[in-house]
Amino acid sequence: MNTPTLALDVGGTKLAAALVDTAGRVLRSTRRRTPAVGVWDEVSAMLRDVRGSAPIRGIGISCVGPIDLMAGTVSPVNITEWMRFPLRDRVAALVGDLPVALANDGVCMALGEQRHGARGGSPYLFGVVVSTGVGGGLVAGGRPVLGRSGNAGHVGHVVVEPGGDPCGCGGRGCLETVTSGPHLVRWARQRGWAGDDAAALATSARAGDAVARRAFRRGGLALGRALASVAAVCDVDLIVLGGGVAEAAELLLDPTREALAEHARLEFLRSARVVPASLGSAGGLVGAAALLDA
Amino acid sequence: MNTPTLALDVGGTKLAAALVDTAGRVLRSTRRRTPAVGVWDEVSAMLRDVRGSAPIRGIGISCVGPIDLMAGTVSPVNITEWMRFPLRDRVAALVGDLPVALANDGVCMALGEQRHGARGGSPYLFGVVVSTGVGGGLVAGGRPVLGRSGNAGHVGHVVVEPGGDPCGCGGRGCLETVTSGPHLVRWARQRGWAGDDAAALATSARAGDAVARRAFRRGGLALGRALASVAAVCDVDLIVLGGGVAEAAELLLDPTREALAEHARLEFLRSARVVPASLGSAGGLVGAAALLDA
Repeated sequence: MNTPTLALDVGGTKLAAALVDTAGRVLRSTRRRTPAVGVWDEVSAMLRDVRGSAPIRGIGISCVGPIDLMAGTVSPVNITEWMRFPLRDRVAALVGDLPVALANDGVCMALGEQRHGARGGSPYLFGVVVSTGVGGGLVAGGRPVLGRSGNAGHVGHVVVEPGGDPCGCGGRGCLETVTSGPHLVRWARQRGWAGDDAAALATSARAGDAVARRAFRRGGLALGRALASVAAVCDVDLIVLGGGVAEAAELLLDPTREALAEHARLEFLRSARVVPASLGSAGGLVGAAALLDA
Repeated sequence: MNTPTLALDVGGTKLAAALVDTAGRVLRSTRRRTPAVGVWDEVSAMLRDVRGSAPIRGIGISCVGPIDLMAGTVSPVNITEWMRFPLRDRVAALVGDLPVALANDGVCMALGEQRHGARGGSPYLFGVVVSTGVGGGLVAGGRPVLGRSGNAGHVGHVVVEPGGDPCGCGGRGCLETVTSGPHLVRWARQRGWAGDDAAALATSARAGDAVARRAFRRGGLALGRALASVAAVCDVDLIVLGGGVAEAAELLLDPTREALAEHARLEFLRSARVVPASLGSAGGLVGAAALLDA
């Protein structure tokens, strides 16, 4: 009746596996840091451990992009040993004849929040993950929009600053060059702030440090502009903001809402709301499991 | 077997109605300028004229946005007497029990090009219409993406210039404030060019006028940046450029391609191509008819 799904969430810094029931509840989970080498050995051990001898109805996989959905391969920027790695086939070989579904991490987060998040409910939702990079995913009519190659939702590469900084993608002025954790930190350090990571930057901002506050404000304004563009093109009324950097809630959320309100002015956009993710780090796992019903 | 569809295309400056067969061929058509008042009378007369006594299988309607798909109403910015006008019900009342489908003009153009355009073929296509405004529409997996309210594809309101000019939508820096026909003309006139409309601007640019050439170049670069953002979020590999201003082909197309190549650099984006529309002004009619099979 409620046979659980095995879910895998592959991120650039963290790996997670879980058993998730059809109501989106995480029954059992395990997490590790993503190792520099031997990622597949780690992943396969985690899947075996968390599954144990439980019956499962299939496996859902969330993986940081870019991915190639046709080939079932993944090429995460921050997992250098995985270049066109055949993740879907490798996982399928572990479980025999069961269904295996793969999508990028932004799509899984969006689907998890849409199906099981406290703020969800809208069938037209865009999910954004702000952490080491900036990713996202679109749900329309209650179904994930995967795109031609499985990479729809790459909001981190919306151009927010014409002639802006070079981006890891080879372009320039991408949202990711302004709002990702490492770029917030770099911008603040160039202006005299002395910390090391986005968590420390959030602590400084909350303590009133002017540079740290400006870093989050600049990042949120750019994010709001990008989301106004996304909302106009995708016609969604709910935007869910998650990821490690976004967990500095109001620091990023307030300027994001400010810029969205300034730019998203057509009548069909005025009802668009930005809310924090409610599933936290479980969102990717819950959404990966939901791929089997998508 | 091949009973035609009655198609209606409502634009801010032109109205068109046609009988279109299931192969996307326009069998019979009529066009008028959009009158300042009495638009519905004109539209209903055109539908009656073009239909004659032919059997039809239904009606497809393309209308300039914004629209409200749930209510079946349209509120075109340039047709002031139509504010939440119940276009779908009015048309349905003309034809009795036949199916009636409505979508915004960008979606219809994209669907027409995808199903019947010479350059089409990709099931993941974004269509852009550059004329009095800038509109667009997304086809994914061969099907139109309508969005929550039927307004998905509003690429004219992608933010391309942070802090840019005020837009008719109430925002600022929208693509429409840079690349639409009236804005190209305004920008050029502010710099000493003396003509009146986008067609004259294209003639001047082809004759070597430096300001006119810069106007198209500026418009195309902004369009290319917006389309790089759209391609990243929607994961399409084909972008079709149509509308009156875009018919100045290479003037807009070359800088659009240049900016797209600069910004769309992730592997899944590198294959994205921009091509001119092949159906011309019939694209909206052909796409509207195709809504009945979408």
